[in-house]
Amino acid sequence: MQRLQSYVYGTWHTGTGEHRPLYDPTTEEVLAECSSEGVDFGKVVNHGREVGGPALRGVGFAARAGMLKALSAAIHEHREELIDLSVRNGGNRRGDAKFDIDGATGTLAAYASFGKRLGDEAFLPDGDGVQLGRTARFWGQHVRVPRRGVAVHINAFNFPAWGMGEKMACALLAGMPVIEKPGTPSALLAWRIAQIIVESGVLPEGAFQFIAGGAGDLLDHLGAQDCVAFTGSSKTGSMLKGHRALLDRNVRMNIEADSLNAAILGPDVGSGDEVMNEFLGNVVTDMTQKAGQKCTAVRRILVPSDRLDDVVSALVDRLSAIKVGDPGNDDSGMGPLASKSQLADVRAGIERLAKVGKTACGGAGSVDGLEKGYFVAPTLIVADDPHADAVHADEVFGPCATVLPYSGEAADAVAITNRGGGGLVASVYSNDWNWSQDVVLGIAPWHGRVWIGADKTAGQAMAPGVVLPHMVHGGPGRAGGGEELGALRGLEFYTQRVALQGYQGTVGRTFGPKSEG
Amino acid sequence: MQRLQSYVYGTWHTGTGEHRPLYDPTTEEVLAECSSEGVDFGKVVNHGREVGGPALRGVGFAARAGMLKALSAAIHEHREELIDLSVRNGGNRRGDAKFDIDGATGTLAAYASFGKRLGDEAFLPDGDGVQLGRTARFWGQHVRVPRRGVAVHINAFNFPAWGMGEKMACALLAGMPVIEKPGTPSALLAWRIAQIIVESGVLPEGAFQFIAGGAGDLLDHLGAQDCVAFTGSSKTGSMLKGHRALLDRNVRMNIEADSLNAAILGPDVGSGDEVMNEFLGNVVTDMTQKAGQKCTAVRRILVPSDRLDDVVSALVDRLSAIKVGDPGNDDSGMGPLASKSQLADVRAGIERLAKVGKTACGGAGSVDGLEKGYFVAPTLIVADDPHADAVHADEVFGPCATVLPYSGEAADAVAITNRGGGGLVASVYSNDWNWSQDVVLGIAPWHGRVWIGADKTAGQAMAPGVVLPHMVHGGPGRAGGGEELGALRGLEFYTQRVALQGYQGTVGRTFGPKSEG
Repeated sequence: MQRLQSYVYGTWHTGTGEHRPLYDPTTEEVLAECSSEGVDFGKVVNHGREVGGPALRGVGFAARAGMLKALSAAIHEHREELIDLSVRNGGNRRGDAKFDIDGATGTLAAYASFGKRLGDEAFLPDGDGVQLGRTARFWGQHVRVPRRGVAVHINAFNFPAWGMGEKMACALLAGMPVIEKPGTPSALLAWRIAQIIVESGVLPEGAFQFIAGGAGDLLDHLGAQDCVAFTGSSKTGSMLKGHRALLDRNVRMNIEADSLNAAILGPDVGSGDEVMNEFLGNVVTDMTQKAGQKCTAVRRILVPSDRLDDVVSALVDRLSAIKVGDPGNDDSGMGPLASKSQLADVRAGIERLAKVGKTACGGAGSVDGLEKGYFVAPTLIVADDPHADAVHADEVFGPCATVLPYSGEAADAVAITNRGGGGLVASVYSNDWNWSQDVVLGIAPWHGRVWIGADKTAGQAMAPGVVLPHMVHGGPGRAGGGEELGALRGLEFYTQRVALQGYQGTVGRTFGPKSEG
Repeated sequence: MQRLQSYVYGTWHTGTGEHRPLYDPTTEEVLAECSSEGVDFGKVVNHGREVGGPALRGVGFAARAGMLKALSAAIHEHREELIDLSVRNGGNRRGDAKFDIDGATGTLAAYASFGKRLGDEAFLPDGDGVQLGRTARFWGQHVRVPRRGVAVHINAFNFPAWGMGEKMACALLAGMPVIEKPGTPSALLAWRIAQIIVESGVLPEGAFQFIAGGAGDLLDHLGAQDCVAFTGSSKTGSMLKGHRALLDRNVRMNIEADSLNAAILGPDVGSGDEVMNEFLGNVVTDMTQKAGQKCTAVRRILVPSDRLDDVVSALVDRLSAIKVGDPGNDDSGMGPLASKSQLADVRAGIERLAKVGKTACGGAGSVDGLEKGYFVAPTLIVADDPHADAVHADEVFGPCATVLPYSGEAADAVAITNRGGGGLVASVYSNDWNWSQDVVLGIAPWHGRVWIGADKTAGQAMAPGVVLPHMVHGGPGRAGGGEELGALRGLEFYTQRVALQGYQGTVGRTFGPKSEG
């Protein structure tokens, strides 16, 4: 039996006690097992703080950017092997596996690129300097400096590669050592990547630690300079935020929870428009990629009532054509869910939604011809009432979405969409810019990202579910209230902004933007 | 008996039930009383969200900046009356009262000035646009939009005017209606300012509400679009952050707690240097202004051991010369603490500190010749050991500081200062820029602001305890982990940053920085 190990305080640690099994969700076979029992989490935190942090900060931003580039290359070298692991332990189709793994290497490379222009100082200027006194002598300059603690990353099971990669990229570039804890069901892939990272020798010792298994009492050891970034359910996020030690010590925390992301079709869009085709394609992709286990997947589809039948019929045609099965087979269009408990949750969720609408395709039942594995069919439910509480209440984390018929009025689209209580991304499809603007401005306060489709960009843009390193990822309210990525914005969480006040000739010259120098 | 009222849902509300008394801390006479019993807090929140918010956002940033300017002028017109109230209810000397009141009007005016250049759009561009697709057609632009909830401000007793003014300035300019809850002991001044604001008619109805008395179940009514900004003790801050409804709904929260701010004297500074004089003057000002009841007051004074006797003797000379007494008398150099419970806390704190050092002047006892009032003498304690836990443990919120002798090495200054666990501001005094830089970079991650004094700026800069609207105010760890002010940075908390993706010709043109238009 493969036992995953933790990489802590410079060594690979094999857990003791009871191990938790990791499955192949296609065959339900046990692939590996893990336990973090016996890890000394206080020592992990100290090792990061005292060994990893100083070593990382001993070089500047541009040098750390170079490390990210090397990490990206080291992981990319093992791409085929990692894809195979992702198919087996994640139930991912090869395309879905690539989405995760190339997402990781791509984000690391993007941050290498963002960082290489930052120079080798120990700080980043934040804005221009400002005169504070009666004369220009007394001067103010804001800078950002790396926090002196550890960055704890509690990652979700659905993106073992990308999730770890995107969080690492920001923390390491900022100058903070990381402690990565993958979601256990898919930890095999994350563990292999951890091996590659350690074997690459790219990072100084202590800059990267990896926990296979539970987080134990890790959080109890954190303090004022540490950060916790969590991706997962709203419920777990709220529990973590309420952790007494984190509250008392004002440990910085970022929560990225799932949300009921909406796709909104404009009333002007007809079947002949390119944007209609893009809408249909994106909705199907964002519903079924990774079997709908994406935090950015589409959960609610707003369709003008007068176009309801056509749109539902077109979506059902496309969804029904997707063959569900072994993700290792090339003809499978969608693989299984990641775990047995996810399957149970998704089935229960579909049953709740089916009570407030008509099931247009799919459903909670087992999939014909598949006796093993955590499979569920792509499921589309047409809500009787777009304002029904159930369709805005909780996320079904699988290939399932609800169609919500609405008037076509921008104000109605806004009101219905915002009932989700805060989302990571919403997509808007229309060729009428005035209408789109009204919707965008109406939903913007409730979202971290708004994606706007039109004929002019059809075929030129990745689907809304794709998280790009240039743009922020996160969202208010039920989406967790957090923010990650967004190019250098992603470093804000891992740095302390500090206002410096003093003589213009020293403070301004030393800490100001270089163009002022 | 004067009864303070709350201004809620468009009307002045007189509380029912038991009222809490407000004292004159000089005479211990009861001046007024207040209670918020009977206020419907759910209605308060809805009134802000549904009446105040839309009205505020119905105009743009520049128009709201105009409101701030008018508010500043309206409050300034009543300056003399407000100073009198501040002397009576706050125990403030006239100079201290002006510091608070002019701080409020000055910050409102500063935000009027920051805001007038922002135009009248419903959003603020955040950075430049970026190409996202294979061609320039698909484009990304970040913007900030006002949050659609209410901003609840829980203010501290020590700055009833400035604290409310600085929080209001940022929230209102951002486009969020405010609910102001002053600290009860000094609520008389805040209440009079609330009357002036309401009577001025400057703000649309619902944009400003005011709670005289307890916050009741206000927090239970908050949701994803609301914010809470709190200034006060770490303990209360942590309790608020752990409030279940706020956690579950990811209500945004900013905590500004007090901290053990340090003043650090460099080893190069001799008695003939201008910066020595500035150091002595600033330390005395920041210890005794408002009887040391400033979140930015100096609590720890790092002095090179070889200069200890001279510096302590110079500080004692200045502190002992300050006449403690009725703040209404021109010859009083320092007034009383704000309340009986503060007096008890400060006395207990001085006693704890006296156990680990030598009391150079002042002490926990009563002040000669003052039989009434919450007076305590300016107190300086020289610590036996600069690493003693007690001197870094908890803040004594009065005119009391500890002198910590140290080697003069930058690394020692950094290690001792950072033991405070996170501060709002630290000040560094030296003419040796290399030494200053080492200290600044070493303490920066633990601070929100670092003030650097040198001969070149002596006499040109306000003391470190002065919070300027241009620079951020807040600090990590025990200082609360929050951030306010900093010119337009202060709007971040009250806005949602959202990534927009779409056609460059629409998204870029409409939402990009105007220079790109």
